[in-house]
Amino acid sequence: MSRKTRIVQKYGGTSVGSPERIRAVAARIKKLHDAGNEVAVVASAMSGQTNRLLALASEVSPTPTARELDSLLSTGEQVSTALLAMALHDLGVPALSLLGHQVQISTDSSHGKARILSIDVSRAEEAFAEGQVAVVAGFQGVDERRNITTLGRGGSDTTAVALAAALKADVCEILTDVSGVFTTDPRICDAAFKLDRISYDEMLELASLGAKVLQIRSVEFAKRYSVPVHVRSSLDESEGTWIVPEEKSMEEVLVSGVAFEKNEAKITLLGVPDTPGLAASIFVPMSEAGVVIDMIVQNVSAEGRTDMTFTVAKDDVASAEEIVRGIADKVGARGVAASPSVGKVSVVGLGMRNHAGVAARMFKLLADEGINIQMISTSEIKISVVIDAESVDRAVGVLHRGFIGVDANTSVGGSG
Amino acid sequence: MSRKTRIVQKYGGTSVGSPERIRAVAARIKKLHDAGNEVAVVASAMSGQTNRLLALASEVSPTPTARELDSLLSTGEQVSTALLAMALHDLGVPALSLLGHQVQISTDSSHGKARILSIDVSRAEEAFAEGQVAVVAGFQGVDERRNITTLGRGGSDTTAVALAAALKADVCEILTDVSGVFTTDPRICDAAFKLDRISYDEMLELASLGAKVLQIRSVEFAKRYSVPVHVRSSLDESEGTWIVPEEKSMEEVLVSGVAFEKNEAKITLLGVPDTPGLAASIFVPMSEAGVVIDMIVQNVSAEGRTDMTFTVAKDDVASAEEIVRGIADKVGARGVAASPSVGKVSVVGLGMRNHAGVAARMFKLLADEGINIQMISTSEIKISVVIDAESVDRAVGVLHRGFIGVDANTSVGGSG
Repeated sequence: MSRKTRIVQKYGGTSVGSPERIRAVAARIKKLHDAGNEVAVVASAMSGQTNRLLALASEVSPTPTARELDSLLSTGEQVSTALLAMALHDLGVPALSLLGHQVQISTDSSHGKARILSIDVSRAEEAFAEGQVAVVAGFQGVDERRNITTLGRGGSDTTAVALAAALKADVCEILTDVSGVFTTDPRICDAAFKLDRISYDEMLELASLGAKVLQIRSVEFAKRYSVPVHVRSSLDESEGTWIVPEEKSMEEVLVSGVAFEKNEAKITLLGVPDTPGLAASIFVPMSEAGVVIDMIVQNVSAEGRTDMTFTVAKDDVASAEEIVRGIADKVGARGVAASPSVGKVSVVGLGMRNHAGVAARMFKLLADEGINIQMISTSEIKISVVIDAESVDRAVGVLHRGFIGVDANTSVGGSG
Repeated sequence: MSRKTRIVQKYGGTSVGSPERIRAVAARIKKLHDAGNEVAVVASAMSGQTNRLLALASEVSPTPTARELDSLLSTGEQVSTALLAMALHDLGVPALSLLGHQVQISTDSSHGKARILSIDVSRAEEAFAEGQVAVVAGFQGVDERRNITTLGRGGSDTTAVALAAALKADVCEILTDVSGVFTTDPRICDAAFKLDRISYDEMLELASLGAKVLQIRSVEFAKRYSVPVHVRSSLDESEGTWIVPEEKSMEEVLVSGVAFEKNEAKITLLGVPDTPGLAASIFVPMSEAGVVIDMIVQNVSAEGRTDMTFTVAKDDVASAEEIVRGIADKVGARGVAASPSVGKVSVVGLGMRNHAGVAARMFKLLADEGINIQMISTSEIKISVVIDAESVDRAVGVLHRGFIGVDANTSVGGSG
């Protein structure tokens, strides 16, 4: 007898957001189960629950302990998995809910952002052997002292991919409220279309697009263990986007997607003496203050002085600027300049590894549109530019038109 | 150095019913901790949460699986313990929340009414050694396969007493919204007063009074392990009622309390042939239907026939009567009579073990009041009578006056 197809499905908070939605999800799982598949399901907390619990915590203490916060928040997934298992039972599908400490999912002890160290799937394998659906709580694990840990926002995606890897599943399906990964945001550019397939690396570089679909860390996991991930709609059965190992044909595509970020701010430390340790003296205090740095550009120095520019999320600009102004004198800078409102646009594609001229073509497309480039940063399969925030929409449009065009699968009479 | 005083406290759902209440409870615990005591706290779910979760379950499935229901309901205590530990931290008191699977509390696998088999207190002992308050989730445990179990309504009391036994605590304090155990319900009889001390056995027999204060199973546990239990108010620091091993002086009190139950119904199987197996043929189907029988009285038979009478909770009378009518023909009974509205009044006291005449005096007190006795049942330290439901209040009053009087500690000018 051949091995059964093994499927891990992950449902987000909206998909299990009400008893009705949970029953609908159970009905969908029942079809897979009845067709003879081995199914493990990872559920997020019902939408709204995590925020409810966070509000309770903040009413009890302005600075809730990380360990206790994890124990508190993990109840969200405990509730949804128990309810989903009940709903499956009610449809005649044997099911077993499994919490992080039951599966079990072992993590390090970094409460609130724990990393999965190993997954013991023997209990889930037993469930399969008994014909049960394993309903696994996302987002949570236990450390070696059996303290409950959580994996951070979107952690259920990582639970699903890690579980799929441990179970050697044929696919990890991420069921969500969008129908897949798009070439860019359809709200900005109506020529955007759903990608059928994309490589792990492209997905990682498309972070700003992808983060709306699934947690980026889960893609790293999927890449490391070669787990095929299928991002698709929880509302219908249509095919979504497969995130898979690199394929030969993918290299023929110069640009797979256009990613962007609107809410950034730019800070420049002007004319600072270019001495060893300069970058550390700026970014260590920034990191300690919890400011996340996105792009950093440092030009070659002239007369021993250089300009150091970086971008941060708009929300962090005040604290970042304060830190930089505090350091400016100490490092002998001539001044500090801040632009509180810039945007970033990136083109991503495996093809640019082997094809020269993508950057030049990108800059030309933007120049023809009259958009000024403030900063440039490149990686092997990505080119990013920082521009005025107000020009982001136009930039996305011109780059999508210039590099991607319209969906080859749609008729010429379509939109765009 | 002498051993520190070790205290287990249990707070009910109302006491931890809001962030403000949780902070107040934390402040009370802080005082005990700062005074140098080793403190373990057992918390119930925030009031209303268990019902909220039950409603969710019933929306997902009309017959939720017992295992999943336990996993669901146990989140209530997981939330309150995490919040209480946070509140303690916030007051500068080191605290560690411990769930059933972390403590750990091992139970059998009877979901919804699990029994505690053993408690491993090593984690709690470590917490004490580190100067931490151990905040333990009530109501929950794990079976040998790490399935989450719950102990049934009021199970947090049992958690507290069992934990106190395992920790060899000096006292188990049950903090509740009443100030202790009363001689009878003050709402019925204004001469009722709070008992300073009562024996485990009396407390067990006072079930109907005691059940409003703490789960009766917890008293069995306290008796078996000789845990001194102190029932007191969560709202002030006044002394409550100590439930303790039997003391010599207790035998001098004929009657410690008057218990009663108003919502009972009585069913009689008339003139049934008195054959072996008669009782089983009636009560086995009753038990299978989930009907809880309270009192059973069977008179000696005349001409080979007997009357079998029993009481059930009013809510169960319809199904009980249906079962009995179904059996009546089969067992050759002459008929079935049902009184849908009777009451039960009991006097309880260690003293009646050595003093004759308590029953006679009780019957005389009721007769003088014109109250007719329908059934009588006795145990070593308790006499119960079934009477008309409408006479219960008067019966409680006359028995309290006749046996207990007014509180010896209050002035003669007091109420009553």
